[in-house]
Amino acid sequence: MMRTDLAYEAHEGLAKKCEGVILEKHDLAHGELIRIEIIDEEAEKIVGKKIGKYISYETPSFKHLQDDARKEVIESLSSNLKSIVDINREKILVVGLGNRRVTADSLGPRTVDKIKVTRQYFKAYKKEYDEDYNELAVLVPGVMGVTGIETQDTIRGLIDRIKPTMIIAIDALASRNMNRLCSVIQITDAGIEPGSGIGNMQGSLNKESMGIKIAAIGVPTVVDTATIVSDSIDLMKKKLSHRIPVVDETLGLLGQLDDNEKMGFIKEVLNPRFSDTYVTPNEIDELIEILSDILAEIINRAVHPGY
Amino acid sequence: MMRTDLAYEAHEGLAKKCEGVILEKHDLAHGELIRIEIIDEEAEKIVGKKIGKYISYETPSFKHLQDDARKEVIESLSSNLKSIVDINREKILVVGLGNRRVTADSLGPRTVDKIKVTRQYFKAYKKEYDEDYNELAVLVPGVMGVTGIETQDTIRGLIDRIKPTMIIAIDALASRNMNRLCSVIQITDAGIEPGSGIGNMQGSLNKESMGIKIAAIGVPTVVDTATIVSDSIDLMKKKLSHRIPVVDETLGLLGQLDDNEKMGFIKEVLNPRFSDTYVTPNEIDELIEILSDILAEIINRAVHPGY
Amino acid sequence: MMRTDLAYEAHEGLAKKCEGVILEKHDLAHGELIRIEIIDEEAEKIVGKKIGKYISYETPSFKHLQDDARKEVIESLSSNLKSIVDINREKILVVGLGNRRVTADSLGPRTVDKIKVTRQYFKAYKKEYDEDYNELAVLVPGVMGVTGIETQDTIRGLIDRIKPTMIIAIDALASRNMNRLCSVIQITDAGIEPGSGIGNMQGSLNKESMGIKIAAIGVPTVVDTATIVSDSIDLMKKKLSHRIPVVDETLGLLGQLDDNEKMGFIKEVLNPRFSDTYVTPNEIDELIEILSDILAEIINRAVHPGY
Amino acid sequence: MMRTDLAYEAHEGLAKKCEGVILEKHDLAHGELIRIEIIDEEAEKIVGKKIGKYISYETPSFKHLQDDARKEVIESLSSNLKSIVDINREKILVVGLGNRRVTADSLGPRTVDKIKVTRQYFKAYKKEYDEDYNELAVLVPGVMGVTGIETQDTIRGLIDRIKPTMIIAIDALASRNMNRLCSVIQITDAGIEPGSGIGNMQGSLNKESMGIKIAAIGVPTVVDTATIVSDSIDLMKKKLSHRIPVVDETLGLLGQLDDNEKMGFIKEVLNPRFSDTYVTPNEIDELIEILSDILAEIINRAVHPGY
Repeated sequence: MMRTDLAYEAHEGLAKKCEGVILEKHDLAHGELIRIEIIDEEAEKIVGKKIGKYISYETPSFKHLQDDARKEVIESLSSNLKSIVDINREKILVVGLGNRRVTADSLGPRTVDKIKVTRQYFKAYKKEYDEDYNELAVLVPGVMGVTGIETQDTIRGLIDRIKPTMIIAIDALASRNMNRLCSVIQITDAGIEPGSGIGNMQGSLNKESMGIKIAAIGVPTVVDTATIVSDSIDLMKKKLSHRIPVVDETLGLLGQLDDNEKMGFIKEVLNPRFSDTYVTPNEIDELIEILSDILAEIINRAVHPGY
Repeated sequence: MMRTDLAYEAHEGLAKKCEGVILEKHDLAHGELIRIEIIDEEAEKIVGKKIGKYISYETPSFKHLQDDARKEVIESLSSNLKSIVDINREKILVVGLGNRRVTADSLGPRTVDKIKVTRQYFKAYKKEYDEDYNELAVLVPGVMGVTGIETQDTIRGLIDRIKPTMIIAIDALASRNMNRLCSVIQITDAGIEPGSGIGNMQGSLNKESMGIKIAAIGVPTVVDTATIVSDSIDLMKKKLSHRIPVVDETLGLLGQLDDNEKMGFIKEVLNPRFSDTYVTPNEIDELIEILSDILAEIINRAVHPGY
Repeated sequence: MMRTDLAYEAHEGLAKKCEGVILEKHDLAHGELIRIEIIDEEAEKIVGKKIGKYISYETPSFKHLQDDARKEVIESLSSNLKSIVDINREKILVVGLGNRRVTADSLGPRTVDKIKVTRQYFKAYKKEYDEDYNELAVLVPGVMGVTGIETQDTIRGLIDRIKPTMIIAIDALASRNMNRLCSVIQITDAGIEPGSGIGNMQGSLNKESMGIKIAAIGVPTVVDTATIVSDSIDLMKKKLSHRIPVVDETLGLLGQLDDNEKMGFIKEVLNPRFSDTYVTPNEIDELIEILSDILAEIINRAVHPGY
Repeated sequence: MMRTDLAYEAHEGLAKKCEGVILEKHDLAHGELIRIEIIDEEAEKIVGKKIGKYISYETPSFKHLQDDARKEVIESLSSNLKSIVDINREKILVVGLGNRRVTADSLGPRTVDKIKVTRQYFKAYKKEYDEDYNELAVLVPGVMGVTGIETQDTIRGLIDRIKPTMIIAIDALASRNMNRLCSVIQITDAGIEPGSGIGNMQGSLNKESMGIKIAAIGVPTVVDTATIVSDSIDLMKKKLSHRIPVVDETLGLLGQLDDNEKMGFIKEVLNPRFSDTYVTPNEIDELIEILSDILAEIINRAVHPGY
């Protein structure tokens, strides 16, 4: 199975329609809003995404958004974020997943830098309630390769101490398509599974594992290298078949390999030395800067009534 | 009471000798090693430092250490760190306190970047024991003004999940003397009290509050502004008294104010707007870079038998 | 002479009125706009600020600006920046002075990160002119203690290559008053003199030394430690004189010392080891983040007609 | 032509031997030292690398170097760096190329942070000569996408001001082989050509363009995505040919496409949106940290007699 963290990408890759999936597409003025819901365990297995709701906004590029396009993105996604996990009066923990020092993986930490943190004031003034702001704290747990600690342990330990009522997790995702790099924002109530994004998580981060409701928001910033190679071969097959008659047969045979066998094979070819490699655009730093601004705005609006 | 995180500085400031304090000084080739032990509650009250052992290495400057001086610092402090909390076969959590983005307060986080982290390998290979390395994880909890979370909650929550047998905490300290800025390293088993350093902690970080043994290591990187002013006045008194006969009387009277009254008075003069200000040298970035290298080397040697 | 980079602060400290200075104050809804012009060399000598125009906006705090206050700051200063050096069709070099790694000195570099850079597009598309954007490049020259290079050499060398028509320089300034820390923005056409801010410059950065027009924009982020001590003593004198009759006499005598003698004396007391120390609030990181946003917005609006 | 910045990789990819190339290989205890010299213009054209000397040290991994292996790398390369451009009494400008904020491209800037800078002391003490240290300054020019300025202009402008006698340039390189990522260090006197590494340079950086001698040192940290795809297809051909008889014919035909046509074709498939993408391992941050330490040590030893 090609690796993707986007539910609608996983769904569109299916050979045939799946019963337990509800799909809606809405054309907005500047982009497309796609809602997909995985409603039963069979659909979960077929699509490879957990039961839950997934809402994506896709636009050709977030890089040069005009004011009205930016407004559309932020308003539609902040209201969706609010409703998908029913944000009301909450004690919120915002978690920036990923590794701050690896550019393509720094979306979570860099978004967290721009979130309006308020819990310290609630504590200092012994407040229980504020008209304009929810109580909000942030955590950047780091990645196990740097800290030696499973991300879940840091988060779960903190939950036990400060007792938030919900989590919002931000993460860099993997897409299976270069065209979607840095051009989709996905929100879900289904949490985050191991091996997402640049592959930092060792276990699930969801309602079951954390004991409180969770919303996850992310943007694909990398494509797995094996996916790129596999895709390129498929596209070549299409493009070359009129020029070289036997192509179809050959690459077709490659195509007939079981997906896991094929990916394993490509990975063997690619990575004799590195456990994981990914493809990223060389303008990634600028894109992360822009995207972290937008995500922070979406979250700040969704969580603080008076923001 | 003038603010200092150095036990021997607190002690030397006392008007008269205190019973429950054991003090030893050792001249080494390149610096001075000072051991001070606070042995009872009365001494704790008089000196203003918790019961425990404090070991300091002081040298005119860590900035231009020759190889043999550097070796002396690292060897004497790593063996003292090892013995002060009896580091044996341990599961260690190294905590870098302070705010990474405020230069004078970044000593903890920047030291942690250079610590040899091993816990991920123990987990990946399901190891319980290694000849050369202890199991070690690191945490940079951040400061409450940024995260909204009391430092202790993040640490305590993590301890409950990963069950280390000891903590090593690294922190930027406050001195009451410009001459000691970035020129003393202090190790203690007494933990860290609220209002240390740049003032990030809200509660104690010690054996009682954490439930496991703790070693703290730090270097003064700031002097409280009120301390500087008070010191300057005292020194002026000394220097000017021969030139201006009434100085002694005037500044002497100022000196006779109760310490708390005096500091409160100076703080009122100084900080109408800011809750806290500190004095720091403008070469602080370079000094932190050098000191974090040395602290990391001390810790790596003390904790990993085969380092 | 007490050290300040703010012209109106230097002016208000004068014992008596100075002929060659024009001063205007305007109360705006959320702050005060002060224009001061040094018109001849005698005024230059008395005030200690170069011939030129200085415009300052002062407000109690930039930390919690409401939307309309923020708008006032940005609009009044961007139009003043535009007029003070007559920004028209230009090739602009924006220079972020200071040391990115020392928080209080990072205002210049961190503002530059948020400036809209366009020169690469002018070059790529061989454009000479754009309706909406001026050609703009940025430079962060670093400080001599880190690079080994005089800031002016890096800037001057680049000017000779890319031939801009004007410079906008951003720098962290020194104030002589804690109350003005991070609460004043100053714009000037007089350039930047050696020993400003945290003391990184070795020579002047002005129209004469660079050969093109220059606007400088800055915010005080530090107070020289010696200034703080001197101020505190003066304030004490005022506050204590009713309690201790001879205070006036003593501190008065100290006050009668020649300013240079007095500052030299205080510096001797303060800094046996460090060439320079400064006082900064411990929330400085957050303040720099906020101020760099505001400065970037002021500059972007002043330079790009279509921003 | 597949993209590589390593001369011996370019050479080994040639279909047949080339006259104007001198190649020597030396097995050392822990790695292999390869010297290649391009001696005439024909060789320059065939190999695709400028006339000059190229020295590479290759080892399976720099990640877990033992002390003696580390010593071998540093000693052999520092002495080669010294001799390749005849470092004697010099005024040196060390230039860290690349974008500090893009991890895979930050090798130059992060190495520069660890170089021993001395020029400020030569200037402060008006020294012309020092037994132990050469006069050395550093520059991090940034990349055109961020600064709007061609890297060469910043460097050339500075050379005109401070008149160094030589340049040492550090850059992240591109390899055409995943196996060589972060496992080769190359030194050359031929300078750096446009489109090297992550593709930041717009013109040449060499003796001709700068007017003084230049040594360049670099490590491959990325592979061009198109190269990876092309390689994967070649390897598949090899691996699959026994299983699928017509593979050879099909992929062989693809192989017969002219190299430029083939790469153009793959690029078309890959990057409809991004001008350039690259493949990098996800442990890149840790690798850059290790490599910048080693490069800085090589340079410090090569340039400062008393280091």
